[in-house]
This record gives sequence, structure tokens and C-alpha cells, in this order.
Amino acid sequence: MSRVAPITRTAAATVNDATERSLATLRMRFDQARAQTLALTDGLSAEDCALQSMPDASPTRWHLAHTTWFFEVFVLERFEPGFQPFHPGFRMLFNSYYNGVGDKHLRAERGLVSRPGLADVLAYRENVEARLRGLLQAPPVDAAAQVALTEMIELGVNHEQQHQELLLTDLKHLFSRNPLLPAYRQGWPSVPVHPSPAGWLACPGGLIDAGASTASFAFDNERPAHRVYLEPFELSLRPISCGEVIAFIEDGGYRRPELWLSLGWDTVQQCGWEAPLYWQSQPAGERSGGSKVGRWQTFTLRGVVDISPQAPAVHLSHYEADAIARWQGARLPTEFEWEQMAQQVAVEGNLLESGLYQPTEALAAPPPGLPTQMFGDVWEWTQSAYLPYPGYRAAAGAIGEYNGKFMSQQMVLRGGSCATPRSHLRATYRNFFPPQARWQFSGARLARDLK
Amino acid sequence: MSRVAPITRTAAATVNDATERSLATLRMRFDQARAQTLALTDGLSAEDCALQSMPDASPTRWHLAHTTWFFEVFVLERFEPGFQPFHPGFRMLFNSYYNGVGDKHLRAERGLVSRPGLADVLAYRENVEARLRGLLQAPPVDAAAQVALTEMIELGVNHEQQHQELLLTDLKHLFSRNPLLPAYRQGWPSVPVHPSPAGWLACPGGLIDAGASTASFAFDNERPAHRVYLEPFELSLRPISCGEVIAFIEDGGYRRPELWLSLGWDTVQQCGWEAPLYWQSQPAGERSGGSKVGRWQTFTLRGVVDISPQAPAVHLSHYEADAIARWQGARLPTEFEWEQMAQQVAVEGNLLESGLYQPTEALAAPPPGLPTQMFGDVWEWTQSAYLPYPGYRAAAGAIGEYNGKFMSQQMVLRGGSCATPRSHLRATYRNFFPPQARWQFSGARLARDLK
Amino acid sequence: MSRVAPITRTAAATVNDATERSLATLRMRFDQARAQTLALTDGLSAEDCALQSMPDASPTRWHLAHTTWFFEVFVLERFEPGFQPFHPGFRMLFNSYYNGVGDKHLRAERGLVSRPGLADVLAYRENVEARLRGLLQAPPVDAAAQVALTEMIELGVNHEQQHQELLLTDLKHLFSRNPLLPAYRQGWPSVPVHPSPAGWLACPGGLIDAGASTASFAFDNERPAHRVYLEPFELSLRPISCGEVIAFIEDGGYRRPELWLSLGWDTVQQCGWEAPLYWQSQPAGERSGGSKVGRWQTFTLRGVVDISPQAPAVHLSHYEADAIARWQGARLPTEFEWEQMAQQVAVEGNLLESGLYQPTEALAAPPPGLPTQMFGDVWEWTQSAYLPYPGYRAAAGAIGEYNGKFMSQQMVLRGGSCATPRSHLRATYRNFFPPQARWQFSGARLARDLK
Amino acid sequence: MSRVAPITRTAAATVNDATERSLATLRMRFDQARAQTLALTDGLSAEDCALQSMPDASPTRWHLAHTTWFFEVFVLERFEPGFQPFHPGFRMLFNSYYNGVGDKHLRAERGLVSRPGLADVLAYRENVEARLRGLLQAPPVDAAAQVALTEMIELGVNHEQQHQELLLTDLKHLFSRNPLLPAYRQGWPSVPVHPSPAGWLACPGGLIDAGASTASFAFDNERPAHRVYLEPFELSLRPISCGEVIAFIEDGGYRRPELWLSLGWDTVQQCGWEAPLYWQSQPAGERSGGSKVGRWQTFTLRGVVDISPQAPAVHLSHYEADAIARWQGARLPTEFEWEQMAQQVAVEGNLLESGLYQPTEALAAPPPGLPTQMFGDVWEWTQSAYLPYPGYRAAAGAIGEYNGKFMSQQMVLRGGSCATPRSHLRATYRNFFPPQARWQFSGARLARDLK
Repeated sequence: MSRVAPITRTAAATVNDATERSLATLRMRFDQARAQTLALTDGLSAEDCALQSMPDASPTRWHLAHTTWFFEVFVLERFEPGFQPFHPGFRMLFNSYYNGVGDKHLRAERGLVSRPGLADVLAYRENVEARLRGLLQAPPVDAAAQVALTEMIELGVNHEQQHQELLLTDLKHLFSRNPLLPAYRQGWPSVPVHPSPAGWLACPGGLIDAGASTASFAFDNERPAHRVYLEPFELSLRPISCGEVIAFIEDGGYRRPELWLSLGWDTVQQCGWEAPLYWQSQPAGERSGGSKVGRWQTFTLRGVVDISPQAPAVHLSHYEADAIARWQGARLPTEFEWEQMAQQVAVEGNLLESGLYQPTEALAAPPPGLPTQMFGDVWEWTQSAYLPYPGYRAAAGAIGEYNGKFMSQQMVLRGGSCATPRSHLRATYRNFFPPQARWQFSGARLARDLK
Repeated sequence: MSRVAPITRTAAATVNDATERSLATLRMRFDQARAQTLALTDGLSAEDCALQSMPDASPTRWHLAHTTWFFEVFVLERFEPGFQPFHPGFRMLFNSYYNGVGDKHLRAERGLVSRPGLADVLAYRENVEARLRGLLQAPPVDAAAQVALTEMIELGVNHEQQHQELLLTDLKHLFSRNPLLPAYRQGWPSVPVHPSPAGWLACPGGLIDAGASTASFAFDNERPAHRVYLEPFELSLRPISCGEVIAFIEDGGYRRPELWLSLGWDTVQQCGWEAPLYWQSQPAGERSGGSKVGRWQTFTLRGVVDISPQAPAVHLSHYEADAIARWQGARLPTEFEWEQMAQQVAVEGNLLESGLYQPTEALAAPPPGLPTQMFGDVWEWTQSAYLPYPGYRAAAGAIGEYNGKFMSQQMVLRGGSCATPRSHLRATYRNFFPPQARWQFSGARLARDLK
Repeated sequence: MSRVAPITRTAAATVNDATERSLATLRMRFDQARAQTLALTDGLSAEDCALQSMPDASPTRWHLAHTTWFFEVFVLERFEPGFQPFHPGFRMLFNSYYNGVGDKHLRAERGLVSRPGLADVLAYRENVEARLRGLLQAPPVDAAAQVALTEMIELGVNHEQQHQELLLTDLKHLFSRNPLLPAYRQGWPSVPVHPSPAGWLACPGGLIDAGASTASFAFDNERPAHRVYLEPFELSLRPISCGEVIAFIEDGGYRRPELWLSLGWDTVQQCGWEAPLYWQSQPAGERSGGSKVGRWQTFTLRGVVDISPQAPAVHLSHYEADAIARWQGARLPTEFEWEQMAQQVAVEGNLLESGLYQPTEALAAPPPGLPTQMFGDVWEWTQSAYLPYPGYRAAAGAIGEYNGKFMSQQMVLRGGSCATPRSHLRATYRNFFPPQARWQFSGARLARDLK
Repeated sequence: MSRVAPITRTAAATVNDATERSLATLRMRFDQARAQTLALTDGLSAEDCALQSMPDASPTRWHLAHTTWFFEVFVLERFEPGFQPFHPGFRMLFNSYYNGVGDKHLRAERGLVSRPGLADVLAYRENVEARLRGLLQAPPVDAAAQVALTEMIELGVNHEQQHQELLLTDLKHLFSRNPLLPAYRQGWPSVPVHPSPAGWLACPGGLIDAGASTASFAFDNERPAHRVYLEPFELSLRPISCGEVIAFIEDGGYRRPELWLSLGWDTVQQCGWEAPLYWQSQPAGERSGGSKVGRWQTFTLRGVVDISPQAPAVHLSHYEADAIARWQGARLPTEFEWEQMAQQVAVEGNLLESGLYQPTEALAAPPPGLPTQMFGDVWEWTQSAYLPYPGYRAAAGAIGEYNGKFMSQQMVLRGGSCATPRSHLRATYRNFFPPQARWQFSGARLARDLK
């Protein structure tokens, strides 16, 4: 009944909400998110934070500044009495894509800005944080304004979490372009892992509920909740593994057009793809034991490591995921098939908090009769284009640009990855990227028709 | 025994089918389609037929050859005893995109081939036609083979009809790039027209049937029939008109990013779009009566003419259609919303047979309580990405490449245009193009949520 | 009083000149050149004449029209009483690059024009020719005007001859892009050939005269005559042969950066060059006798033929010529070194009139103590950039754009080719192309320092 | 025994040379050059030193490393007993373009390397400097080896000086791409300036000596000394001024194709040039006094300043310099005309040591009867293509790649700029850039024929 995001439509609905999640909780969430971002930059130099490796990726320093800009422009500017900008040039410089806010710096040129430097941006963060905490100490007395404020801060916290993941994937891409292949973190945390059993889980389909219906936070693109009719299908118990990708490669998968969507095949040829992103083939002579599997290594945030055949495959484009599925006589699930299954599973797994920053085997023993690793490890490409749900309408003003205008030429991914904060996820969460994108922690899970 | 898809679902259905539409009917359909194609080239010079104006468009002569190639490779090569190719080089030269058939000539280089010339290609057409008629006179005695043959010829006829439309849109694009702006046809046929009333038609939604369920011909991408749940909505009685586009332009529509999808806005800026394709603005001094409407003219297959505000807008990209809808507080329909309405309307309208080759007002008085111009005039962009229906599986072999591999990064259009043969259409028909494409006869119709 | 450049230097000279080369001679030259152009199109279809294979090349029909346009705009428009254009659109449509004449059609879009067709362009040619002959029958009575008229026609004849060569090289390129590799001419004329002896010819250098000093026709870029100081050098007796190129290839020449200019090496890698343009390597199995030489074939205007090791190498870029020279411990000559030698040799050789349209061994026995094949066979790349001679000044008005504005980023070639009309050449003639161009009949001759 | 080029021509000369410029002098030169480079980085942050603004420009940190690499690879690796590289990865990472040394990192990707950071590179500099000083304390006893060592160090010092200039021009470009337009230096040094008188200086021409003939250091591209014949000409007393450029702009110079070389006009249109690089036009309302001159400002290493009409114009491409010359009825000088005049003038002017980093009026009163500002302020584009002198031969091995392989498609500039160290220059010095390059301190001086 309450339809809300991203800001909230009616004061009535949101007052409940604001009451529930008290200001104290919000303050904690805010502090935690901001600290989490900073913690991710531990050990990085000013230069690590300044460079941009491709137009799709942004410098770490830009992420630090832009997440701050979001709070400054969408919270302080609206709610702080006597608001003055921290720096008059930042409004344009750290605007990502909000035309409603005014001019913006070109995305592809974020790596051309050496000043403000890292120290300046950290000062910017501190300043805006302090003022935001002040606002949370003395919120507007008007109930509707208070609701609007807390909602916008909640959105800002979720926005910050999204950029935590991007900060890691962008940094990984940058380090991969350095011929010396530096490691972001040294050594691996020791975690117990469990084999993920192969197999399928059937679902009878029918008319199901999809999308976010609760009052708790969800992005506007997860709403409104609505009904979808599903044909019977089955879903793989686990994501596509590296071992399956190796078998695909060895079966000539990257050279067989019949396995690919037409644009996928064009991309394979134009980009010379022969394996997932960051994979590198080891010359025969240097392989341990001459094993075929030993042929492959991959660059990670901890440097170059041998591929583990049991681990979920990652850094796949939608095109590769689709081709690997076809090669196995299967297909990718729709986002609604995925969501239907995910509703039965807890939001747990190899998420940002594991500190691995790389997919691995299941961290917990697989639940009987349920799929494993639905959350964490890898974002799972679906067969669904990223389109508005029935009745979707973007919010008015600049904040309406958050999600809606990107509903073209992208595919939906579900489930989060090893770089997603746990509190950021839920079964209805929709991530989206163009089908050729590979630098995210993206993999897939197979589905099959049951008719 | 049954090898059927993409054309029909069950052997049982097809045997009936083959019986019904007797060989005689098929021969007639074949002859008619082949003659129709040739008739479209009346008055064209060898040079008109040879040039290619962009990678997306093909020379007329290539269309003449490729439609023949389709029958040669998919029918004669499979069914003609002692088959010999007309010319050993043609198999590669006129292969459009079937990797399963072997090498193919690059699409972007179809305009680099002066030999075989038009006369050679016409001889090729005659040769293959004669042999195909021979085959239809003496079809295989084996029932399954006969079904397979007739199905493949049926597919070839529908394929030929698709290229009739492309021949016209490609030629229009070519002529538009000639600074002398030659006309394909002189003068306009005189046809009575009827005003299309504005207004909306409501639909309660619910669980509906979608896709092709009958035994008669449909492309594989229209199958399987399946159920879809629709929320209540309303659909505009008529397509977006040129007058509405003029109002959009005058309201600054092409300069307001908030009206556009993000990629659409990028395209507007990169391509410098200020109006639909082929529109040209007349300097103030030369306008009749100084009227604002008189400002706009457009290039047609009959040369440059004044824009008629009542006529359906054409040569819109999906992005423009989407932005114009948003500007009107509406949206584009999904393909299922459109299909649900179209099921109630006869396949009639301003189609290829009208000989206008340009959208116009309604040729017949609008039926009370029903939308007008659902078929003909302009292909109508929908909000639906071109994706497989639940249970879709492409046919085995090269013919499976016909539709399935293009299910990525394209949007569905429905309803046919002034360049579509009437017998080629039906309510379940799915056309598809990338969202930035404008050289087809593409327009749109508005929809709105009813909740 | 008469201002005449770019054609002759002094009024005195030109009056003599105009007297000498009587109008009768000019009429004959004009008729001959026009007929020669048409003869080159024998056997070509309308489609052969319509297509454009790359922005650098033009359709045959465009050459036919543009050479006519030159006479219409620069002669008829200036000298014909009551001049009316043949077609008002042609002034723009067939303008190549003369900004002073007004708008021009984009070079890269010459292949998008199907109308006017070949028949229309032939009618255009006849019309303008008839009017030009009329003008030559009744020239202006004023002496200066008569001089100006005849000079401009002389320029137009030379312009026509330049396009005869381009017509052939552009057509060759077009046919080479057709997968069926059609031949322009069938069979080879039988001509006796003589081996070209290897060896060097020394020149002491010193202060020499360069450039065109005589009153007879020369382009403005050959003037003024001026002095140049040469160091002692020697020149190869014959052009680089195909055999030398094969040896270069087999020595890894196309894979060794140390042999190349930096931009040349970039080009080799970007374009994937492994041999001269039009060369194709025959798989080992299909070679006659397994010989290494038999490995190479080339596409010619008479179809694909085996490479003759003794023939001059052709379709070399400047970069390849330079690298092959360096590989042989030599260099390319400067244009003045070349000219100094060429002054001693008659303008004879394998020129357009031989009808071979392909370089070959020497047609006449090599003159003792002189280099062979200085004229004809292949244009010879020099080490000289195409720059103005001291005192050069382009003519006023549009005709001044003929040569001067191209004096940037091109290299000088000397000597003419198997596609150059004999009467078009002389020792001071400067041709010019960018260093990466390969589709002309371009080769080279080695030089060495003698100190 | 003598292996010397590109540095000196004969062993005899070099032995003298080595004696003259004693090791002590060389040590001083080395220390001075290295300190000078570091001084230029005063006040720069690690981030300022890390970014790359375009493929043509390099990060400051890269310049710091590459100049060190040059000494490590070409001096230490050859002459240091028991040589060990500072870091095994640096040999590839900081190789600019020497194929003879092995792999190299892509130029366009120098901005993708965050590690080694600035501190690491400074440590690299110190390490190599210390080892080089050690070598200079204990040079090889073998005389030839000692000569080779000192010559190579001399080359390295000159190489370092070249990069000092590039460091500044690359940094200026980077800062110009930052929307906040940061200044490299605050405030302007106070220097007295003198008006540069307009006028011309005649030269009778004749057979002159060109190129470097002395034993002192000169690059190989300045050798061999040789004779050149010049026609009589005159040279402008001063470089083209900003005032002249403003007049050119106001006369429509950037919109008149007849003033431009053809490729120059193409560039103007493609790049949308309307003024020299870094110039920005001030809206009418904001101009002081509404003066036309006040319309223009420019970005400098000290931020945005008003254009001074008397100052030499800078950041011109060759194409702009050529068009401005043509507009004034003049032309650019050849490099030999320029050199002939420059031989009469002392190497003094607004050079790196002035600390202005921007061209200005003459720092000293103009010498009577001599041109001003031949050295310093702006590199002066000539009409000469960058080509080898007669008898030029590049040195063997990787060091031969220093200059020779770039002798294609570039134009010669002479005289040095406000960013060139004084001790780096001489009258025979040849700089070279492609004609469209604008980010160097490049201007020009006019010449005219005197016949």
C-alpha cells in the first residue's frame, strides 16, 4: 500500500518509517558507511586514488568526493539553515550525472584533475560529515521535513555503499593496467569453505509477487511491487564455476559463433576475448604438473593467483554468461525467476565484510533443498533487460535521475558480490550494467525451462 | 521425424497446415511476393540499385540477390535433386548473417560490389525462381520432407516481404544523401483520408494470452504462446502525430535532458538531433504565411513535402518516441499491452499496397471504441526489449540464426508500416531495431497507467 | 597586364607560347584527351562507374563529370558569352576541392550519388565539349583574353590527364574490394621486355638548376626554376624490383622496427601490413614447384597473376620504400637528385599508351650509362616533402587552390607510371601523396651518398 | 674504434672535446641539470605528478623517471662494472620509444601507473645519480671508453633538458583540463621589457653553410654541416604578436579557407579552432572598457591572464602560423633562412631561467640592425619539413632511434622558448613537431621573398 522511493510520496507513510528507524539508528548507519568507505582506502597512496583507467571507471578520490557531494547537494543544500558550499567549484566538479543539479564534469575526464588532492577531499569529507551530524542532532521540527531529511540520508547511505563496491572494482581495473600488477592487499584471510553441490532446484511458476513491497528502504527501481506470471523452471544450485568456464574455453567456446548472441560475437571478435577479464594463460612450460587447469591464472586485488575450478566464475560479460549457458543447454534466469528463489534464502555469503574481495567456494554449508551463494561472491546476470516495473514513475527533480534514466540497453544483475556490503542487499535488489561490461564482480547462474 | 521450429510447434499442426494451404496457394504466394519485389524496382537505374548509403542499409541489388540466395541455399540446396549453385561465389557474397552457412561478405561492404550487375542478378532471380517452381511442381513424396519444403518456402516468402520494406527504407536513405534529393516516385496517389480522433482506450489488464498460438505462419520469435500479467492501462487512440512533434520541438524538447533516457540524451548531443530524421527546417522568409507549422518539411520517397500536422510522426528513434511520451505525461506501451489491443482490430490500413510509401491520416473512418492505425503507417516503438518468450528455443542449424541471436540491445516495434505488405502482418508480429535507429518507418503510440 | 600563373611566368613567354601552340594544336590536344578518358571506360558498366571504395578514391562517373566540370567552371563560365550552366546542381556536386568556387560535395560521399547516372554524365560531357569547341572556333579577339583562354584549356587538358590515371587506380582499388576480383581487361598485350641491369650511376652534385624554366606547360608547383646545391650521390640504375621486396619480406622486413620510420612502423602495425598492397600469399600446397618466389601473387587490372621478380615493385607506400632502402644500406633520392638524372633521359617507357596498366621489365634496351625506367612503370617516392619552391606563389582565386594548398604532409613522387599519359610528363613534374598511400602505381629507386 | 654518432663526427674531434670539457665540467653540468629538473617540481603534489592529460603528454613523474632511465640504460648498463638494475620492471616501464632496448610501455598509458609513486621515483633518481657520480669519479681508463662515456652523459644531460621543457608544457596542458584551472606558480616575477620594433631585415642569400660543424655538442640531426643555396629574402624583426593574431581573428581568419593549407583548414573545422590554444574569449559584458583587445584572455602557468597584444603569440600550430603569415602577405621562413639570421645573434632572451614560463616583450633592448627574440619566448615554426641533412646517418643501435626515425610528417621549429634552458640552445638547433601540435610554446616569425 505504501509506495515510496526514492524519497517518499506521502508524509503519512514515511512518518511511520522515520519513527521506526530512529534518528539514532540512522546516525549509526551513516557513521558506519562513511567509516567503511575510508577503511577501504587504507594503504592507498594519493596517486592510487587519483588515476582513472577507463571512462567507465572513476578514481578512488572521485568516489570519496562524489559520495560527499551527494550529501552536500541533496541534504545540506536543502536542509541546512544558511547553507554555504564547501567550495564553489565542487558542485560541478563532483556531479556525476544529475542534469537537474546543473553542469557536470565529463565522466571520461575525472582522471585529469590533480587538484583538489586527496588531503583536500578528506577535509571535504570531514566538513560535510560534521555538518550532517549537526543536522541529525537538530533535525527540522516539521514532521514532513524530518521525514524527507531522513529518507534522503538513508538514500545517501545506500549511495555511499554502492560506491564502496565501485571503488574496489575501479581500483582493481586500474591496478590491472599497471605492468607491475600491484596488489591492493597482501595475503589472504583464512576462511573455511564448503563445496557447492551441482544440481537443480525446480519452481512451479505461476502468478508471483515481485518487487519491493515493504516500507523499509528499497530503490525506486524495485518498486512498485507487482505480479508476474512465471512458467515452470529450474535454477542451478550454484553459480557457474571457473571449472565450467575452462571447459567452455577448451571446447572452443570463444571461437564458435553459434553459441553467442550476435552482438556478443561481434564483441568477442572486436575485443579479442579468449577468456574472462583478468584471466591470463600461463605458458605450458611454467605450469605446475602440466595440468590443463593449471594453465589459467587471474589478477585479483591480492595480485595474480591460480584459478580455482570450484570458485564461481567472475568478470564475465552478459554475453559470455549467455554463451556459457547456451553451451550447457541452459539459459540465464529472468530477474523474476531469480528473485522468486532468492526470497527463500537469507542475505548471507561472501560479501564485502568477508574481506576476501574475490569469489570463492561457499563460506557456509549449503542449506538442504536451497541454492547456495545466491547472495555475495558474484552479481548474477539475468536474461532481463533493465526496464521500469509497471507503474514505475521516477521522482520529480534531480533525484529522479538516480535510476530511471538508465533504463535502456542494460541488463539486470542480482544478488550482490564479494564487494557488496551486507546491509545494502535484499532479494528485490536490481543492479544493472551494459551486456559487454566485465569489470564488475559479475558471474551468472543457469536456468532451464520445465515444460 | 518432426523438424519444425522456428515455424510451427508440432508436426501434427504442420501437416494440417500443409494440407490447408495447398501447394497451389503457396505457388501463388511465392509468385506474388517475387513479382512484388520486382515491381518495387520499377524505374530504378542500375546505379540506384548498386549504392549503399550506410552500413545499416543495403543496396537494392543486394536485396534482390539475397532474397534469391535465401531460396537457393535453404530450399534448393536442401531439396533439389542434383543441386548445383548458380554461381560458386554467390553463397558467400549474398549471405547476410548466417554463420552456419559459412563465410559471409561484410555488411558494410555491400556497396563495393559492382559485379555481378543488375542484369546478372535479375538472371539469378529468374533461374532460382524457375527451379523453385519446378520443385513445387514435383515436391518430395515423403510427407515430412514435403512439410519441411513448404514450411521453408513459406519462410522464404515472409523473408522476401521483410526485404521489400527494407528495400524501400534503404533506398529512401540513399536518395536522402544525394544533394539533388531525387524522388523515387512522382506525384501522389489520391486517397481519401479521415481525421484520427484523439483520446484514450482503457484496458483492465489481468492475465492475458500473448504470442502466436495458431498453426498458421508466425516467426519463431512470436512463439511460444504464453501468459502475461498486465496492470490496468490505457492506450492512445492514434499514433503520435507530426503536430505533437512540432509542439515538442517548439517546447525545447530536443534541448531538455530531463525528458530523455540517458543514452537517448547522449545520442541527441552526439548526433545533433533537432528533429526527426528527414525533417528540414525552412528559413522564416520562405515559409508560406509565416506559420510556425509551415516551418517544417520532410524528404519522402516522392521528394520534399510540407509536414502535415495530422499525419503520424515517422522516422523517430525509440529515444525520441520515449521522450515525446514523457513530455506528454505518458509512456510507451509494452509490447503485450499493444498486442492485447491489436487483437481486436483488423489488419488493415496504410500498408505497402496503398502505394503511398508515407504515413498519412486514417484511410478508413475510425471504428467506434477502437484505436485507429494500429496496423500500417508507422511501426510503433514499445517499451519492451526484444527478448525471448518463455520456452523459446531457436531452431537447430543456420536457420536458427534467423531471429534468436538478435535478442540483445534492441526494442520491439509492432504494427507494420506504409511499407509492409498486408499479408505479412498480424497482431503477434514482433519487429525489432536498436533504440537509436531512425531510418525505418518508425513512430509510436502513447500509453498510461490506470492506477 | 596578363596575370597568368600558375601556368607560365611572363606575359612575353606566354604570348610566344600561345602563338606556337596554335589553337589547332590545342583543339587536337583537347579532343585527344577527352577521347582518351572515354576510351578508358570501354567495357565498364554503369555500376562499375558509380561505386566508391574508400574516401581517397572516386567513382569513375565522378571523374567523367568532374573533368567536365573543370572546363565548364573555369573556361565556359569565364569565357562563353551568355553562359548558362548545364545543370544548376552540378556546380556544387562535382566541385572537388575549390573553396573559391563555393560549396562542394563531401569527397567521402561521392559514392552516395546514383543520379545523375552514367548516361546523364555522358550527355554533360558532350554538351560541354561542344561548347568548348565552339569557343575554340571563335576565341576572344582580345589577345590577353585569348592567352588566358588557351592557358586555361591547356590546364584543363592536363587536369583531365591526371584524372585518367586516378580513374584507373581508383577502379583497381574498387575491383580489389569485390570478393569475386573482377578483371578490368582480359588478356595481356604481348610486349618484348629487356632485363634491367643492376648497378649505380654517380653524380658529382654541386649547384644545379631545378624546376621548370621553359615557356611550355608546367604546373605552378614546378616553378620557379631555382638553384639547389647537391652533395655527390649515386642513383640506382633501375627501380626497386619485386624480387627485392620478396627478399625483404623473407628477411623479416615487415617485423623489424629498426628498418622503419617511426610513423611507418606504427602504420605497419595498425594496418597489419605484411606485403605491398594487392599482394597475396599463396598457401604452400598450391605453389608451382614449391618455389619461394611462387608464393606471391598480385591483383592487377587483368586479374590475379604471379609476381614477376624482375618487374618494378609497385603499390608501395613511402614508408615501405624507405624501409626497403634502409634495409639495402641505401636511401631514397631527393626530388632534385632524381630530377638531375632524369634531365638526361627521354620521356619514354611503360606509360598509359602501352596498354599494360601494370609495371614490367624495361620495354626498350637500357641506354648505356643511363638509368632505365625513369619514366613510366612506377611513380618513384623521393625523400623530399612536397613544399613550395623558393619564390612560389599560388595564383589568385580558386585556380590557385590547384596545387599550393596541398603542400603539407605529403611526399614528392617523380617519373610517372604505367597509367600516366606520355604527353603529360616531364623531368620537372612533381606528383605528391601522403607517405602511407599505396593505391597509386608507386614504387621507388635507391640512392646513396658518395662521400 | 670510434663509435660516436649521433654526437660527434670524428674521433679526432671528440678526443679534443673530451679533453676540453673536462670531467669536472661534465659533473657540474650533470648536477645542474638534475637539480634543475627537481626544482621545476617544487610545489607539485604527488597527484600533479601522476596524471596524463593526452597521449602526446606525459606525467611529470614519468619525466622524472624516464630521464633517469636514460642514464641507467645508456650509461650505467654499458659502463658500470657489475651493473644491476634498480628495479627489473623499470627497463620496460620507463622506455619511451627505443625498440632497440626491448619492450616499452604504451605512451598513451603512462597515466595508468600509480606505482611506483613519486617517492619511489625520487629514490630511483637518487640511486642512479649517485652511481653516475661514482662512474664520473672513476671513469674507464681506456681513452675511447672514456670518450664514449662522457659523450653519452653529455647526451643524457641534453636529453634531461629537453624533458624539462616537456614537463612544463605537459603540466600546463594538464592544469588546463582541470575545471578549476589551478596555477603552477603564483604571482609574476617583475622584469623590465622593451617594445619589439616592427620591420624587416634583408638577406642577400647565396650559397651558405648550414648545420653544426663545431666539435661541441650538437644532436645528430644538426649534422653534417652542409651547403644550401638561398634566394634573397627578408625576415621579420620580431615574432608574430598576439595583437596580430587578434586582428587575424577579427578579420575572420579562422573562417576563411583561402588562408589555410588544406589539411590546416580540415583541422580548424574538425577541432573547432577559433583562437590559439588556451585562449578564451570573455563575454562582452565582463570586458574592461569594452575594448576589443580586452576580449581575450589566456591560461598560463600562473593562471588566467589578459592577453598582451605586444607579446609574441604562442600555442600556435604550424597551420595557424602559416595562415597568419599568408594573411599578412608573407610566409614562414625555411629553417635555413632562420638559421642564417640566427648565426648573428647571441643565445639570449626569455628562456627557462627567466622564470616567467610565458612569452613576453623583449627582455633586452633590441640590437640595432638585428632581429629580436630569435632565442627564447616561442619556438618558431618554419616552412621546412623535418628531414635528414645530406649525408645524415643515424647511429647504430638503440641510441640511433633518438632523432632519425621521427623524420616524417613533422615540421622544424627553431630558437627555443620561455621553457628552454639557455645552455641547451644554439643557432643550428632543430626542434620538430607535427603541424597540428599546439601545446608547446610555439609561435612563428614572418619571411618574404626579395625578388
